[in-house]
Amino acid sequence: MDEATGEEYIVEFEPLGRRTQVTRGTTLLEAARQAGVGLSAVCGGAGTCGTCRVRVVGGEVSPPVEGEREALADGFRLACRTRVLGDVRVDVPPTSITAPQRAQIEGRELAVELDPAVRTCDVAAEPPSLTDLQADAARVRDALDRQLPQLAAEDGAGIRFDHSALCQLPVLLREHDWQVRLVVRDREVIAIVPAGAPPLGLAVDIGTTKVAAYLVDLESGETLAAAGRMNPQIAYGEDVMARIAYTMDGASQARELQEAIVGGLSEMARDLCAQVGRDSAEIVEAVLVGNTCMHHLVLGLPVEQLGLAPYVPALARAYDLKARELGLCLAPGANVHLLPKIAGFVGADHVAMILATDISEAGEVTVGLDIGTNTEISLAAGERLLCCSCASGPAFEGAHIHDGMRAAPGAIEWVRLVDDADGGASGVEYQTIDGAPPVGICGSGVLDAVAELRRVGILRENGAMRVDSHPRVRGTGGATEFVLVPAGEREALRDVVITRKDVNEIQLAKGAIRAGVDVLLEEAGLEEGQIERVVIAGAFGTYLDVGSALAVGMFPPLPRERFVQVGNAAGMGAKMVLVSRRCRARTEEIARRVEYIELTTHARFVAVYTAALMLP
Amino acid sequence: MDEATGEEYIVEFEPLGRRTQVTRGTTLLEAARQAGVGLSAVCGGAGTCGTCRVRVVGGEVSPPVEGEREALADGFRLACRTRVLGDVRVDVPPTSITAPQRAQIEGRELAVELDPAVRTCDVAAEPPSLTDLQADAARVRDALDRQLPQLAAEDGAGIRFDHSALCQLPVLLREHDWQVRLVVRDREVIAIVPAGAPPLGLAVDIGTTKVAAYLVDLESGETLAAAGRMNPQIAYGEDVMARIAYTMDGASQARELQEAIVGGLSEMARDLCAQVGRDSAEIVEAVLVGNTCMHHLVLGLPVEQLGLAPYVPALARAYDLKARELGLCLAPGANVHLLPKIAGFVGADHVAMILATDISEAGEVTVGLDIGTNTEISLAAGERLLCCSCASGPAFEGAHIHDGMRAAPGAIEWVRLVDDADGGASGVEYQTIDGAPPVGICGSGVLDAVAELRRVGILRENGAMRVDSHPRVRGTGGATEFVLVPAGEREALRDVVITRKDVNEIQLAKGAIRAGVDVLLEEAGLEEGQIERVVIAGAFGTYLDVGSALAVGMFPPLPRERFVQVGNAAGMGAKMVLVSRRCRARTEEIARRVEYIELTTHARFVAVYTAALMLP
Repeated sequence: MDEATGEEYIVEFEPLGRRTQVTRGTTLLEAARQAGVGLSAVCGGAGTCGTCRVRVVGGEVSPPVEGEREALADGFRLACRTRVLGDVRVDVPPTSITAPQRAQIEGRELAVELDPAVRTCDVAAEPPSLTDLQADAARVRDALDRQLPQLAAEDGAGIRFDHSALCQLPVLLREHDWQVRLVVRDREVIAIVPAGAPPLGLAVDIGTTKVAAYLVDLESGETLAAAGRMNPQIAYGEDVMARIAYTMDGASQARELQEAIVGGLSEMARDLCAQVGRDSAEIVEAVLVGNTCMHHLVLGLPVEQLGLAPYVPALARAYDLKARELGLCLAPGANVHLLPKIAGFVGADHVAMILATDISEAGEVTVGLDIGTNTEISLAAGERLLCCSCASGPAFEGAHIHDGMRAAPGAIEWVRLVDDADGGASGVEYQTIDGAPPVGICGSGVLDAVAELRRVGILRENGAMRVDSHPRVRGTGGATEFVLVPAGEREALRDVVITRKDVNEIQLAKGAIRAGVDVLLEEAGLEEGQIERVVIAGAFGTYLDVGSALAVGMFPPLPRERFVQVGNAAGMGAKMVLVSRRCRARTEEIARRVEYIELTTHARFVAVYTAALMLP
Repeated sequence: MDEATGEEYIVEFEPLGRRTQVTRGTTLLEAARQAGVGLSAVCGGAGTCGTCRVRVVGGEVSPPVEGEREALADGFRLACRTRVLGDVRVDVPPTSITAPQRAQIEGRELAVELDPAVRTCDVAAEPPSLTDLQADAARVRDALDRQLPQLAAEDGAGIRFDHSALCQLPVLLREHDWQVRLVVRDREVIAIVPAGAPPLGLAVDIGTTKVAAYLVDLESGETLAAAGRMNPQIAYGEDVMARIAYTMDGASQARELQEAIVGGLSEMARDLCAQVGRDSAEIVEAVLVGNTCMHHLVLGLPVEQLGLAPYVPALARAYDLKARELGLCLAPGANVHLLPKIAGFVGADHVAMILATDISEAGEVTVGLDIGTNTEISLAAGERLLCCSCASGPAFEGAHIHDGMRAAPGAIEWVRLVDDADGGASGVEYQTIDGAPPVGICGSGVLDAVAELRRVGILRENGAMRVDSHPRVRGTGGATEFVLVPAGEREALRDVVITRKDVNEIQLAKGAIRAGVDVLLEEAGLEEGQIERVVIAGAFGTYLDVGSALAVGMFPPLPRERFVQVGNAAGMGAKMVLVSRRCRARTEEIARRVEYIELTTHARFVAVYTAALMLP
């Protein structure tokens, strides 16, 4: 039944107050995208994840379909399954909104000697005369050769001009009396800028969920401004697979995803520059890091093959292209550098992380982890640098958890079970992000909760919940759950619970990570105890409680002081590569050196994984 | 007085039957551009040339202004000075229409060994497996290294991918079972094409007035199709200076001119490919030649400085860029090559002409000329290659001539004065293009007429017309004219005359050319008689009668057999450069070798020019 007849209706999203006009038959999810409402859609609108729950508070919509039953029970509809048949008012619960969310921007920085890919050169060209009819470009080339003879020496062909710079050259030379400041990259003049203002660079870590961007003064190396925000592609699916599926609908869908992230980056560049009174047209170099899928999507490369074994990327090497080829609004001649990748899901973000954490150079046996839906793990031991990627799933992002949500206001992020004053049953202490009334629980909260439930004996080793072990445990058999927050407490609108299934999700996630570490140790012929340092990067890695992670067995049992949480190491790595060509060269060396271990086909993986599922 | 109020009116152009809607106050010239009517506008709409004459046959327009007097006398208005104040019907006389016009496409071809900048390579890549996780690009690179080891050897970095080619790679590899045909340019894969079809190239000579384009099979070197058409920029002014003036109105005007020519080239590429059942997306390489202004306008470079002494271009070297950077619709990764220039108004078209006529290699003392509004002249003598540019003006294009028109149907192109049967007074024999009723006279016709008028003694040496020397001479003093065609003869709607002023225009034009030749001879220390060959290129050069040119003294008095008319040598040169990298290198050598003589500042020029003005 095609309900699209061309009639137009108004859809209003509350409490955000956003409105949009759509044709009859449009889904509420499409309407939300159009209205700029960041509605969760983990499955990309396939009707399977149930994260796009909304309440229709007025107006006519299509009748419920198969698959909405669970949502309907709570009075919700799935936005992806509900079509507009008249003017509609929709209430969006906070748990279905993807923004605002806490993003990890800061990270531990390593000192780097300044050596950016671009340099500036102030040149004074000879003005032309009737006896000197040389072209403008030749005049500037001559002046550069005089001032930077090493450039000319590097290549007989001398300096080239980016087309956009060449187009500006005649006017700027004449306006500024034949004295201009050139921005030179390799042997190409990429921009002509006013004297005085140092050129800007942009480093970006494009995560599947979050994007962190840094505006850097390329003359001083100083970070002028930084910002984190949601990846705008999130409206097309929360994980990599959902986005790959979305692009398979056609070329325009793939373009839509590229335009979403490129538009978001242009906007961040503009906002960061505005914060320091500059213009994004002054950004002459950008460095992007991201996992393989984010890398391909921002470049407009096909991603379908990334969703199918053997998960082969289109491109693994470092890559340079003009920002304008992507539609990215920086200086017209600006370059974009993408770091090399390792293999499959181990992307340039992990290379950046290895660079920024220095694990390959430290000379210690070091494990580096970047925890996410896919967790990348490296092991540096002597000359060897091993790496793998494990499918830890989205549980730590709050997905697939009964009351899970992302790290947004109202999310429970910290949990302790305590003896209450009576000395009898245990009570629950918890903390929400921004101290808002509890609406759900985010990754670090779930991890704490499971660790605590195990510590006090509510959970068995296999994750089963002991019925009657605690007044807050309810249900029986496979349907047991622990009430963290009863409805009404601290203005909670409903119970927030940890279910038996939630515990199992955490077991699967932490087991995958532990199995990855164990397989790498086996490959290197090392014992757990020989690990001298564990470096944990990424947003979840910053907020997780290492004690809880050890309690559930996510990491080998090592002394607490061997662990270090370094924040957004991928972002720090991107910044290092932005300001240093030596670091750029080192990423290529890292990508070459890494031995990639494919877990899915590894002989020992299943056995190691099964063992790792247990709670210690 | 601003007459634009936002009201819209219909303007209809007869007899072409074109209609358009414009706002009140729009000029008829702007309306004609908008309607796609190729109305002459030699001065670019400044109201000074009087070529945009039209008759308003119905509707309300603005009253005549100063400067229209001459046109008004004949019942015409100047379209550039007449504003629309209501629905209007306009009659466009054939003399005011720029198209259709005879264009010179053919030229004498030199045999060239095939060695194009692009080559194809059929590669069979290894399919990936769980034990071979290399990226697609790396797999293709490996296959290429095996099949074309010399490519890898040339540069340790190996093969690069154009971004558009990289974006296609994953899908095409999988669709074609890991066997694809690559188009490689230098060390870059620029396209992936179906096996079998040879890649196409496009060579274009962009003249100020006309554009000639050639579609070439890059595997065989064969020209598959060729076409000539008007330069679409003609609606913005017929000569270089008018177009430069138009761009000075603002950035959007400059962009308009670029879009006009690039749009025209895309259209020609599409039409040429359609003629042979191919698609312009199969064109992987293009070579453009043109004078310095055309070169700058197609590249989107500023041209203002080209209109001011010392006439310095933005760029003189050979230049390569992606067609997509210009908005030119060829293969997404296609390259555009522009030949190097010499100086000032001596552009890449003249370099192409020197290449195609082989004058620099022949070992004879040779003069090469490309006659146009600016005439470029080269002199090859031993090791020396001298060159100059002279402002011969647009008289040979039919401009500034009382009844002048371009070489379109109805133009008198050949004239002889004959004794009539009575043995007394002389009659006039003439021939029009396409045998159409005479409406005016084009360049070769004017040249013939002047030569004949001098031959039979009607003209004095200084160009003055002897009153009473012939029954067809009328008027007195400075206002004498010769009636070539009386109204009514062969359906002529009005008299077609040669005026005393027309004769002077031809004297100025031919004098400039002759002075250029003479100055080059002086510089080389040669006498006229030592010239062994005179090569005449270009459209006017093809159609002019060498006897008439000698009769008016345009060329040194040499035996007729030393002259050769080679057609569109610039176009032929562009084709040679398209199919041969050796020819490409030779153009750079030519541009380097040429000694440019600036006539405007040359000590002897004025004296030589003054002498050259006389009729022999």
